[in-house]
Amino acid sequence: MAEEAEKIESKEKKPGIKEVAKVAGVSPTTVSRVLNNRGYISEETRKKVYQAMDQIGYYPNEIARALLNHRTYFVGVIVPSIISPFHGEIVQNIEACLAKENYKMLLCNSNNKTETEKEYVNMLKRNQVDGMIVGTHNNNRDIMEEYASLSMPVVAIDRYLGEKIVMVSCDNYRVGEMATRHLLERGCRKILCIRGDSRLKMPGNDRSRAYKDMMKEMKLPAMILEVPFVKPTMEKRKLIWDMLEAHPEVDGIFAGDDSLAVIVLQIAREKGISVPQKLKVIGVDGARQTLSYVPELTTVQQPIEEISEHAVKKLIDLIEGRACESQVNLPVRLLQGKTT
Amino acid sequence: MAEEAEKIESKEKKPGIKEVAKVAGVSPTTVSRVLNNRGYISEETRKKVYQAMDQIGYYPNEIARALLNHRTYFVGVIVPSIISPFHGEIVQNIEACLAKENYKMLLCNSNNKTETEKEYVNMLKRNQVDGMIVGTHNNNRDIMEEYASLSMPVVAIDRYLGEKIVMVSCDNYRVGEMATRHLLERGCRKILCIRGDSRLKMPGNDRSRAYKDMMKEMKLPAMILEVPFVKPTMEKRKLIWDMLEAHPEVDGIFAGDDSLAVIVLQIAREKGISVPQKLKVIGVDGARQTLSYVPELTTVQQPIEEISEHAVKKLIDLIEGRACESQVNLPVRLLQGKTT
Repeated sequence: MAEEAEKIESKEKKPGIKEVAKVAGVSPTTVSRVLNNRGYISEETRKKVYQAMDQIGYYPNEIARALLNHRTYFVGVIVPSIISPFHGEIVQNIEACLAKENYKMLLCNSNNKTETEKEYVNMLKRNQVDGMIVGTHNNNRDIMEEYASLSMPVVAIDRYLGEKIVMVSCDNYRVGEMATRHLLERGCRKILCIRGDSRLKMPGNDRSRAYKDMMKEMKLPAMILEVPFVKPTMEKRKLIWDMLEAHPEVDGIFAGDDSLAVIVLQIAREKGISVPQKLKVIGVDGARQTLSYVPELTTVQQPIEEISEHAVKKLIDLIEGRACESQVNLPVRLLQGKTT
Repeated sequence: MAEEAEKIESKEKKPGIKEVAKVAGVSPTTVSRVLNNRGYISEETRKKVYQAMDQIGYYPNEIARALLNHRTYFVGVIVPSIISPFHGEIVQNIEACLAKENYKMLLCNSNNKTETEKEYVNMLKRNQVDGMIVGTHNNNRDIMEEYASLSMPVVAIDRYLGEKIVMVSCDNYRVGEMATRHLLERGCRKILCIRGDSRLKMPGNDRSRAYKDMMKEMKLPAMILEVPFVKPTMEKRKLIWDMLEAHPEVDGIFAGDDSLAVIVLQIAREKGISVPQKLKVIGVDGARQTLSYVPELTTVQQPIEEISEHAVKKLIDLIEGRACESQVNLPVRLLQGKTT
């Protein structure tokens, strides 16, 4: 009885296909054909059906249609955290690109936790997403295998997820080259490179590789400090502080990302080291929020919009069965600020 | 024929309820009952079914279940942009709270465009979300009516969407009181209040109301500059620059949000006005990203985590048919930095 009542109530609330058919003066099958784009329908009939839908406020149930067509137009997006200006802007752009193509985004913040990331992957599978875009920092074998075994398209942003998975990133080697050359040109000779955890197999590793190559070419000593991305800010601060304490001779810093560069600037201010006179600092990312808060920062800017567009385009290509190249490296550019 | 082939292929790919039943040694109906939590099922049977699901890698199709149960566990979240540190952190927290309760988030960035916002509302309706959380800045009559006419639960964050819609925000009057009193206590007498567009009926308007009340009580002139939230940064900058040019006597600024406060600090630096000696600046929001980039800023911090938690809790209360109060005003606190 209760169920019966519920059904009646929901019928009163939402007009269905039958009501649309009645108003349009066609059969329910015709309405269904229009909605699912199946079979021949004249333009006139199509128009009548859409007008009827508008008139009585009918909304096609996309969930029902998804089930019927084995396509949900849902895309899962997993990132460490949208609070980081880089990932926030990536997600913002991905969402806009997906929306243009009528895809919807299910956003998942893994908080750099393997268990959370796994749960999200399973949740996305259960919800029949058409594909995933993954930008987490995680090298856990279980989770790598999980991605590799998925029977749906996956695109990785700035992360290796195995040979079969398409990867979109900026030209990371060029980032390291550009930043190091810039510091050298500005007269720095004792250049410290601050980077993430080298045990993570990430495309971003090419940044410090380029730095090492250039320093070797210049016959200058390379100095690398590893500051894992997942550490809390206070710990990152301490690592950098101690390094600068131990190496007061450092005259240039190539920071692996802008948040590290900002920490360096704050420490320099506290220690009374004048930037750029005594110490030159360059970061990487150039996200909009960072530039609006710290406009003085010199940085190698990633093409965040293009990365997002390419990731979405590749994913839709894969979803729709089109072939696409397995790796995309997009060009970067130097933004001259006042810290170098 | 093509369809037949497709069906076979998808059968091979994904094990179904029948396969689970076979492995568990129960009937498909029993498996379906376990999945949908319907009818009496012994603990032993339930266990057998779950073990079989694990064994053969069966993922229940949550989309199908959603359709059956008239509950999708999808929640639409519409904000202007997650690039803003405040909204980014709100969305991050909302997502975490929803995930804990097994809800999934469909994220929509309206970019402050009425048409985009409307399209998103319709998209969310078509996708049968169980409810929406809305944090956009928009007073357009059409869109207000759209929200009011929705037959699903809606919770607004820091925004009036009509009498019937639950609203969660911080105690905005207290924000204005706290900021103004702080500047007065620090000796400021010519205090400028920078706020958003007053034509928007927003709870945040209470901030400048409190400022006006306090200035009146102190028999000091109130000075208000309106800088619409939706304007590009460069235009906001120009408005503030011109105001400070015209009123060099200003000795304290209560900025309506931290991004306005940061613009003020940048202008002061360029004009050579020393902060806090000649000019004291206080903002509002205290988002994590802002504090990590501009730790020197004095600000009235919004309880972002609590706002997100309350918004999610209220929405789930409404979805599950529980009554809840129509307005929540959460306490704020002053974070003393070096700009006052």
